[in-house]
Amino acid sequence: MTDRLSTTLAALADPTRRAILARLALGQTSVMDLAAPFDMSLPAVSKHLKVLEHAGLIARGRDAQWRPCRLHAAPLKEVADWIEHYRRFWEQSLDRLESYLHELQAKPKKPGRKK
Amino acid sequence: MTDRLSTTLAALADPTRRAILARLALGQTSVMDLAAPFDMSLPAVSKHLKVLEHAGLIARGRDAQWRPCRLHAAPLKEVADWIEHYRRFWEQSLDRLESYLHELQAKPKKPGRKK
Repeated sequence: MTDRLSTTLAALADPTRRAILARLALGQTSVMDLAAPFDMSLPAVSKHLKVLEHAGLIARGRDAQWRPCRLHAAPLKEVADWIEHYRRFWEQSLDRLESYLHELQAKPKKPGRKK
Repeated sequence: MTDRLSTTLAALADPTRRAILARLALGQTSVMDLAAPFDMSLPAVSKHLKVLEHAGLIARGRDAQWRPCRLHAAPLKEVADWIEHYRRFWEQSLDRLESYLHELQAKPKKPGRKK
């Protein structure tokens, strides 16, 4: 059994699925309209939608004729909360890089090599 | 070829690999010490480390005897930046839930059913 966070991350680990979420961020839409910008068959798009639906990242309408998809962002909050624990690490790295660059700029050029 | 963000997300989509990152957040350590808390063989842990290394999430020392692993958080920043675009969606949902709960509390209880 896969834990929920792993299921979410695996669902997001595909550029087409992230593009689908980006489209749904603009508003709910039909599977047909979702498929249009992708050079993919409807079954291929449906497969991606199933992965997203299983991860709880999208919800689908109940209307049999027009089952609009819409974004469901709650699992994304869990990813954001998890990743927040690591923020200080990348901020530290950026700080270190910045002070290194300042140091480089501040240093006068060496006249020659010392041995 | 897989894009970088997909590679990072796929590497994170495993609870053991996330536990390894959590351990490395405490400081660099050897593969042996990393493996200790997990009920896993060294080769199994090494396989996870390779996935993390390929995704640029860890770096390994060059010392042949003791190749310490350390966390490399830059790819996590990319995930955080990507997910930030969706923050308003989960915040909206929480706001809606909150106002719905306020509404429920404010409403006087109905005396009976109307048809």
